[in-house]
Amino acid sequence: MRLSRYFLPVLKETPAEAQIASHRLMLRAGMIKQATAGIYSWLPMGFKVLRKIENIVHEEQARAGHNPIQMPILQSADLWRESGRYDDYGAEMLRMQDRHGRDLLYTPTAEELVTDIFRSHVGSYRDLPLTLYQIQWKFRDEVRPRFGVMRGREFLMKDGYNFDLTKEDALHAYNRHLVSYLRTYERMGLQAIPMRADSGPIGGDDTHEFLVLADTGESEVFYDSAITDLKFGDREIDYDDHAQCRAVLEEFTSRYARTDETHDEALFNAVPEDRRRVARGIEVGQIFYFGTKYSEPMGATVQGPDGKPVPVHMGSHGIGVSRLVGAIIEASHDERGIIWPEGVTPFHAGIVNLKQGDAEADAACEAIYKSLQALGLEPLYDDRDERAGGKFATMDLIGLPWRITVGPRGLRNGVVELTSRRTGESEEMPPEDAVQRIADIYAGHVLRPCF
Amino acid sequence: MRLSRYFLPVLKETPAEAQIASHRLMLRAGMIKQATAGIYSWLPMGFKVLRKIENIVHEEQARAGHNPIQMPILQSADLWRESGRYDDYGAEMLRMQDRHGRDLLYTPTAEELVTDIFRSHVGSYRDLPLTLYQIQWKFRDEVRPRFGVMRGREFLMKDGYNFDLTKEDALHAYNRHLVSYLRTYERMGLQAIPMRADSGPIGGDDTHEFLVLADTGESEVFYDSAITDLKFGDREIDYDDHAQCRAVLEEFTSRYARTDETHDEALFNAVPEDRRRVARGIEVGQIFYFGTKYSEPMGATVQGPDGKPVPVHMGSHGIGVSRLVGAIIEASHDERGIIWPEGVTPFHAGIVNLKQGDAEADAACEAIYKSLQALGLEPLYDDRDERAGGKFATMDLIGLPWRITVGPRGLRNGVVELTSRRTGESEEMPPEDAVQRIADIYAGHVLRPCF
Repeated sequence: MRLSRYFLPVLKETPAEAQIASHRLMLRAGMIKQATAGIYSWLPMGFKVLRKIENIVHEEQARAGHNPIQMPILQSADLWRESGRYDDYGAEMLRMQDRHGRDLLYTPTAEELVTDIFRSHVGSYRDLPLTLYQIQWKFRDEVRPRFGVMRGREFLMKDGYNFDLTKEDALHAYNRHLVSYLRTYERMGLQAIPMRADSGPIGGDDTHEFLVLADTGESEVFYDSAITDLKFGDREIDYDDHAQCRAVLEEFTSRYARTDETHDEALFNAVPEDRRRVARGIEVGQIFYFGTKYSEPMGATVQGPDGKPVPVHMGSHGIGVSRLVGAIIEASHDERGIIWPEGVTPFHAGIVNLKQGDAEADAACEAIYKSLQALGLEPLYDDRDERAGGKFATMDLIGLPWRITVGPRGLRNGVVELTSRRTGESEEMPPEDAVQRIADIYAGHVLRPCF
Repeated sequence: MRLSRYFLPVLKETPAEAQIASHRLMLRAGMIKQATAGIYSWLPMGFKVLRKIENIVHEEQARAGHNPIQMPILQSADLWRESGRYDDYGAEMLRMQDRHGRDLLYTPTAEELVTDIFRSHVGSYRDLPLTLYQIQWKFRDEVRPRFGVMRGREFLMKDGYNFDLTKEDALHAYNRHLVSYLRTYERMGLQAIPMRADSGPIGGDDTHEFLVLADTGESEVFYDSAITDLKFGDREIDYDDHAQCRAVLEEFTSRYARTDETHDEALFNAVPEDRRRVARGIEVGQIFYFGTKYSEPMGATVQGPDGKPVPVHMGSHGIGVSRLVGAIIEASHDERGIIWPEGVTPFHAGIVNLKQGDAEADAACEAIYKSLQALGLEPLYDDRDERAGGKFATMDLIGLPWRITVGPRGLRNGVVELTSRRTGESEEMPPEDAVQRIADIYAGHVLRPCF
């Protein structure tokens, strides 16, 4: 993308209404614009990061064998009356009537609707296991929306639902989701720690929240510091293998790690004192097992091996897709701006032309731009007629992890400059070496150009 | 994808409520399930086709230099009061109040919101031309929703908005959209004819609708049959070139082609009698130029070259993304099922194993499956333990354009069978030749695996 043709409305001033870094930086970097309280428009760079995150979620869901669907924004109230949650859900559910006076609602979560899809189409245990998921906009009418996309009212969420014949199979689905979420977050450059949590209005016995440590987190968390040494890494997982998935769950949940809702002082005190940590965390996901809570009242049964109807065991599993954009920035920024992890950066590298209009500098930038594109990478080329200082400030603000700086003086010596946004370190090298270095850096990443 | 792990709930019976072929076939092929009147869930295969269509739209918008954004589902009523449309819009707009009693609405179209983004961020003529677009769910509260996704209440739409300094530039944006839409529809295997139309509630002077000819279309259309000989094809277009875009517009709109709303009997009678056609069409897109209708009341001005503020000239441009799924099926099916055009098919080829469990047949199918995947193609492998007749019926119903049939008898002679869904013609050849033929067929297509 050439910056001269990209809609990237960066702000010079820090917006007064933004209280936390991610909100400030997303506004300043031209990623979002508030439409009304807690509801945002995503401008091109914000939308691109959102799509990168969506793609990682889809890829990891596919790897785990889950089926993507798309449920609607609006639902009829009828299904919620069937489950008994219509009245329970309270003021956070946005309700409305259509022109015929029928009650509709803006989906806050879709257990009822997906259970209805299941019971209409699946009749035999032979069709199990089955996990359906979607990435779709949700709405919760927060009393005081704030912190930008971290606590908005309309938000993009991945919500997935497993259907299994037995409790044991459903617990495997739970473990499989935990494994797949660990990999999902790590690909985004995040450490998200699974912590035993409270089930809230979804219901259920087993639940873990995934929390990213950050001073601006809404939850107080208590954990054994040994947990932050764990890495999921590149390990091969057979998602059908019960024992393998359970072993990962045990590895990642056997240390003490709880939110304030489930914190147990006595257990915490059993952790060696030098490893006890009290901090704050941002919730970026949650998994639940809730058994037959929905399948029984809604009649979601399958014929078991003995021919008798069995209500299916279910769970639901969520990832806060739009909230993750904020969480990633909270975890990765400095005073100059955002620092994108390579896995979610909107563009893989920035190209700064120090002297736009200089024939050699222009030609060198074009050549680098096209070489990177030919490798399947997405560069952002600052081809504007602006001063170097302004170009550097924009690149630092929008946080592309790598920058190639091209100017007439360097070119006379046959070199450009490659700079890491994270460390600030620069190195001079021939243009083709800089391109190759960028290619090497992204060699382990899925290159899926997105919009 | 292996069919044994795919949620593809095909129906044996034809659903009674479906009156037209696309609705019947989408239900029977397990693509959608109605959630409530005019509101659908998209099951995996339906969702996959939707994403393929979305990707083509995004790719062609990128080619035309347009910037993708994502505006919210809900808007505040305030902006609509500013433009004066809140009261005008009528009962098709779904309105609601949040917990604080503030008026919200489910976006039916976003001229106001995008104009607000523009006026907040763009101040100079030097930032023009600019076109912002999104693909997002919309809602129009139709009195009698019907025909499945063809006339639903909640639907997925691409809506784009251009901002230009002068009327001349805005008319170029109009022409550029027309060119880009012609290419977009052709890539989906559709002939969509631009017809002079009526502007309706968007307002404006210049507008064309794109119509796909089909007996089940909601509009009566009148046209010169010479128009159906026009092909956009593979031509190279410089989307910045005013003359080139205008020439395409003239080529595709100089023949008589109008909907009943703008039909002119006298002009139609000037068409040679043997070329006069009266038919029905499905509207799949519309482009508008409406000048300063929104920019003036909403104060969307830029500083012109002389330093004075100028209200920008705008237009808006829509593609009915979810409706296209129905329109493509209306235009391409037979009594056995759907026939997907190569550009939007959910899977590039089906693999039918005639004897699941036979070691040689299984191994041959696996090898074909993996070879196709290695080429970036997405095969659907029917690996279920079912009779050949049932497997063929499913493949015909879901309409993958190419099928490779693998059985022990053929394998003894070293061959498999490659069958075209469209012609029904089959040809025997070695497995590796079948793979190569599929690769050749898709050589001109963008292979962007999607979910």
